[in-house]
Amino acid sequence: MRPSGRNPDQLRPITLEIGVSKWAEGSCLARFGDTHVLCTASIDEGVPGWLRNSGKGWVTAEYGMLPRSTDTRTDREASRGKQSGRTLEIQRLIGRSLRAVTDLRGFGERQIRVDCDVVQADGGTRTASITGAYVALYQAFDHMRRLGAISRVPLSEPVAAVSCGLYRGTALLDLDYAEDREAEADANFVMTASGGIVEIQATAETDPFSRAQLDGLMALAADGIAELVRKQREALGVSG
Amino acid sequence: MRPSGRNPDQLRPITLEIGVSKWAEGSCLARFGDTHVLCTASIDEGVPGWLRNSGKGWVTAEYGMLPRSTDTRTDREASRGKQSGRTLEIQRLIGRSLRAVTDLRGFGERQIRVDCDVVQADGGTRTASITGAYVALYQAFDHMRRLGAISRVPLSEPVAAVSCGLYRGTALLDLDYAEDREAEADANFVMTASGGIVEIQATAETDPFSRAQLDGLMALAADGIAELVRKQREALGVSG
Amino acid sequence: MRPSGRNPDQLRPITLEIGVSKWAEGSCLARFGDTHVLCTASIDEGVPGWLRNSGKGWVTAEYGMLPRSTDTRTDREASRGKQSGRTLEIQRLIGRSLRAVTDLRGFGERQIRVDCDVVQADGGTRTASITGAYVALYQAFDHMRRLGAISRVPLSEPVAAVSCGLYRGTALLDLDYAEDREAEADANFVMTASGGIVEIQATAETDPFSRAQLDGLMALAADGIAELVRKQREALGVSG
Amino acid sequence: MRPSGRNPDQLRPITLEIGVSKWAEGSCLARFGDTHVLCTASIDEGVPGWLRNSGKGWVTAEYGMLPRSTDTRTDREASRGKQSGRTLEIQRLIGRSLRAVTDLRGFGERQIRVDCDVVQADGGTRTASITGAYVALYQAFDHMRRLGAISRVPLSEPVAAVSCGLYRGTALLDLDYAEDREAEADANFVMTASGGIVEIQATAETDPFSRAQLDGLMALAADGIAELVRKQREALGVSG
Amino acid sequence: MRPSGRNPDQLRPITLEIGVSKWAEGSCLARFGDTHVLCTASIDEGVPGWLRNSGKGWVTAEYGMLPRSTDTRTDREASRGKQSGRTLEIQRLIGRSLRAVTDLRGFGERQIRVDCDVVQADGGTRTASITGAYVALYQAFDHMRRLGAISRVPLSEPVAAVSCGLYRGTALLDLDYAEDREAEADANFVMTASGGIVEIQATAETDPFSRAQLDGLMALAADGIAELVRKQREALGVSG
Amino acid sequence: MRPSGRNPDQLRPITLEIGVSKWAEGSCLARFGDTHVLCTASIDEGVPGWLRNSGKGWVTAEYGMLPRSTDTRTDREASRGKQSGRTLEIQRLIGRSLRAVTDLRGFGERQIRVDCDVVQADGGTRTASITGAYVALYQAFDHMRRLGAISRVPLSEPVAAVSCGLYRGTALLDLDYAEDREAEADANFVMTASGGIVEIQATAETDPFSRAQLDGLMALAADGIAELVRKQREALGVSG
Repeated sequence: MRPSGRNPDQLRPITLEIGVSKWAEGSCLARFGDTHVLCTASIDEGVPGWLRNSGKGWVTAEYGMLPRSTDTRTDREASRGKQSGRTLEIQRLIGRSLRAVTDLRGFGERQIRVDCDVVQADGGTRTASITGAYVALYQAFDHMRRLGAISRVPLSEPVAAVSCGLYRGTALLDLDYAEDREAEADANFVMTASGGIVEIQATAETDPFSRAQLDGLMALAADGIAELVRKQREALGVSG
Repeated sequence: MRPSGRNPDQLRPITLEIGVSKWAEGSCLARFGDTHVLCTASIDEGVPGWLRNSGKGWVTAEYGMLPRSTDTRTDREASRGKQSGRTLEIQRLIGRSLRAVTDLRGFGERQIRVDCDVVQADGGTRTASITGAYVALYQAFDHMRRLGAISRVPLSEPVAAVSCGLYRGTALLDLDYAEDREAEADANFVMTASGGIVEIQATAETDPFSRAQLDGLMALAADGIAELVRKQREALGVSG
Repeated sequence: MRPSGRNPDQLRPITLEIGVSKWAEGSCLARFGDTHVLCTASIDEGVPGWLRNSGKGWVTAEYGMLPRSTDTRTDREASRGKQSGRTLEIQRLIGRSLRAVTDLRGFGERQIRVDCDVVQADGGTRTASITGAYVALYQAFDHMRRLGAISRVPLSEPVAAVSCGLYRGTALLDLDYAEDREAEADANFVMTASGGIVEIQATAETDPFSRAQLDGLMALAADGIAELVRKQREALGVSG
Repeated sequence: MRPSGRNPDQLRPITLEIGVSKWAEGSCLARFGDTHVLCTASIDEGVPGWLRNSGKGWVTAEYGMLPRSTDTRTDREASRGKQSGRTLEIQRLIGRSLRAVTDLRGFGERQIRVDCDVVQADGGTRTASITGAYVALYQAFDHMRRLGAISRVPLSEPVAAVSCGLYRGTALLDLDYAEDREAEADANFVMTASGGIVEIQATAETDPFSRAQLDGLMALAADGIAELVRKQREALGVSG
Repeated sequence: MRPSGRNPDQLRPITLEIGVSKWAEGSCLARFGDTHVLCTASIDEGVPGWLRNSGKGWVTAEYGMLPRSTDTRTDREASRGKQSGRTLEIQRLIGRSLRAVTDLRGFGERQIRVDCDVVQADGGTRTASITGAYVALYQAFDHMRRLGAISRVPLSEPVAAVSCGLYRGTALLDLDYAEDREAEADANFVMTASGGIVEIQATAETDPFSRAQLDGLMALAADGIAELVRKQREALGVSG
Repeated sequence: MRPSGRNPDQLRPITLEIGVSKWAEGSCLARFGDTHVLCTASIDEGVPGWLRNSGKGWVTAEYGMLPRSTDTRTDREASRGKQSGRTLEIQRLIGRSLRAVTDLRGFGERQIRVDCDVVQADGGTRTASITGAYVALYQAFDHMRRLGAISRVPLSEPVAAVSCGLYRGTALLDLDYAEDREAEADANFVMTASGGIVEIQATAETDPFSRAQLDGLMALAADGIAELVRKQREALGVSG
């Protein structure tokens, strides 16, 4: 029995609520149980210098946690004057994941900035961020399409993410904080609707794990991601 | 007629929702129309070095805006590596306002950190922050009281804040962003339930204003704050 | 009896000495008793990017304290690697105050940078800074006028500032450090020669104060500022 | 045919040279072809505050690249004033990898700091770093053992790392920079002598990759790591 | 003829004015012609951690320039967020120079911080700083002596500094800014009353210079420093 | 007898190894005994803004120490977020020394960046850096000459550097760390092949030193530099 009482292959209750920002071109409040991440996508005219006159756009992401999104308060990064290694690592991962399904030549020399801000954290904030960020990004592109700036949404297929872990030897899907804290291994999977792998980060927390254990985690992840993609499509009201 | 269509002395729809954080000892989502500020209060055992062995506690505040809480995206302060002068100014104001009604000798050598994070901005974020911060602070103290750490909530009376401004020569209460952008003068009032003045910051945006105009702003503010205090008491379910 | 022995409505000895810098286009050493602030105004050709091709100039201010301008030594901000919230707040206030009386269209796309450096501090450094900064700014504009770059000084009227406070219930004008440290409330008033209000910052240090008390402070301030404006005109040798 | 002319499953020439520092308790110059990383291990008496009185030690790592270790010069991080996200990500990975095989209770309240400085870069700097860092760490522990501070080297088994990638659809072992730049996917594997997985980071550079492709990369990695462990044991002159 | 019209071996008018700070334990406004440096010495109880329980005190220095002390305005270091290499180099030099004549065992575990702030710059700010800093330091020690904290001023002899340079092949003493800008070589000499050399920094600005030229500069410096030491003793009213 | 057993006028074994970097246009590993500095020279097209359209190029230098290049580990400057005053001072010295023999009009609007990274430190790192940096710079220019970008190497003559010091009253050449730590005075000399003085930095570590002692140090330095220039010419295979 896992601490949360869920079945090993059971996601937490997932909701992806769109249109939650008065200002952003795309927005999604992603809730994975008690983990709540507010994702917004903002369109900038123009690209970073190294892409100028390339005919390509760019998608980038930033990640942050509100100081008391966590169990005990975490220092505010703006106040400490720098982002932690963990923050930088996560926002680089979100950006790569989104770019993996984006046709950078499909929306002109523009930059989409996706902000993922963790309003409440209970494990799996990076996977909730990626899952919600895709939805916000889709909406921002759709906003451009409706304005006539582009003729189609330049996204090849949905991308989503989920964590899995080994807990007392058993593979569990979508760990919450209490489960994650005790897991022997922790893995994050980013995959597309069609089952393509975008990124795997698997880490032994206590002892090294085996190839067979990795296979078990990956099988859980594939099913979880299929479910998350259904939620994304439902939220966006699209089948594609 | 003001841009928002409200009467000059009419607040925006105000809601103060408590218990919005799974982790924080006190929390309040303050909504002043489309301005939404998430306020949390966190209790730290121990005080800053300069208060050690003084028998006194401390209350401090931090303020931040999500990057896309604003009309156009604002750079993330954590990423720029420093907080702006505006941010520092606002968080100092929130802290002073809360300490003005707190008995620092009434809760031991502890520090309460109040975080005010603007999830969506539409003018008046600092006044919504102060108003919500009081509610979160009250709850954190009440949490300590229920645990038996203190015998009473060490707050003398509620404190709330509202902005007023001169718009085409008329004094208006609780400006939204569209009104604020065009105002000739902008003033923020922090006052207590009993009408005591805690802080006034009044600034001419275009031309200097007169003593009579200031009096007009202050009269609006006093009424607005009385209404906000009623909302605070209602949210907390207390009469005191 | 106030600690300094002055009457409640009595300023400290004020001197505004001009021409104190070999290099600056405008300069003023403002002395409010033992508070000494060196104000210089420097003309830059060109404006910040957001004003380019607007036909407008800009006036900005920076503020600093020498490390041992204070009773006990204060850490050097350059060495700590950042300016404090207090410093940023004060320099923003000085800049706004100067811009309130400046015709930004009246001197081309140039930027005037006013530096207010506190050589010795004994209370009221921000009000001495504003009062001296106006004089330095006037001189810099007059320097441009004499060179034929502009035909008139683009300042509508003098602006000056003074602090007032409640000390044992009595309203006092122009507090020195010893008085300020014990004051129940502290207010800074920035006003023009014609009595227009540019900025009010009033703060309760111990208990909230009343509307009547604020009125008392403001009455003192109005008289004090009239006297400071006389000193400014005398220093500049102008009646306007 | 891969750009380097090697077989798909062929490592670059690997040398692990020990004793290269006059001062460090352990040191190893790891050469993976033209990638040269200087690894040193330094023993500190004492641990970070959060481990004090825990009876446990700590192992941590830092990573850096000399500015002209790369094809075109990279800005010096010390001069830019911060470490990049990539740097922080890599040094966190090195530290986790070493701790996965270290008995933190086996060497008292001491901290071993491992520095991995890239003297010349030609792809695979993080995997060369981990492989060399293990050797330097072993030596530092052995140094303590010879001094009698500990009775045995508190390392459970060797840990090493290698990169693999998909290049024109083929899985290749130990990519150099020219190969990495063109790879469709890039994966780093950290594994122990006994085949346990410590960390996997697999990233699609262009298109998502399949489960079968991941399996191919992992098979190459397992063989490569077995070879690297032989080199480590040889360098250290130990069989264990 | 040198630009300033002075003889090659002639100092600028020098004044060392003491007692210029209301707060500092020692202070001196050093004027070398139009170069004006305000030097203050502040006594801290306690020493940096590495000197604790050593029975020794410490003397350190900080240096800064007001933004418009220079011909054209220099960015404020506090605002840029770091001190320049030049600033750090100068303050290290001042500190070393003072420590060279201070008996660090002669005033208990205290730290004297000397601040040298350039109010107006016209060449030779580092040499004016050292010369004035000695005077401020002496006074701070004398202040401690008068309070009975120490029985004698722990300074072995005066230390002063002067710059010399090669201008059109001629050695000149105490260059002002106009001369320095055109000098072929620039040298700073720090020497004691008895003629001991504390520090020499000699730099070729255009072409390398010869040993004979260095000798010429040094001869000028020795005479200049003797004169500066007379001024120091006169300012302090002491013969020692 | 000096600690190292060398004669007072004896350099440590010196080697200047060229071509040590796969990527840099010029490189030299300078070994002064156990002090090893890796010097690389990198060519940038373009110059800093203040030189644009001047027809001049620029040469600049950066300096760093690997954390465990020293006896006990030194904090990594990239991790601390700033370069120390000592680092800035040294890299400014290296840059000035190289520019003193470079014809800045002789290689177009390009910038050469020389990086001096101390791989192992045993005293005299700045003098080894300058000596090696000249060799790397020469090679970078020669690389441009061979590519036809310039017709001759724009260096007037070799420049090298050596340290001398007073140790128990005796002048010693090229101090190692053990000697330097105990020296009464420490001097660094930068001179050209023809004996011109580029820079002298002489510092009393304990007591002030005399003119005669300085002369003794300088005589040793002149001979040492002549020997270093021979090594430079040998390494470069040139007589000029």
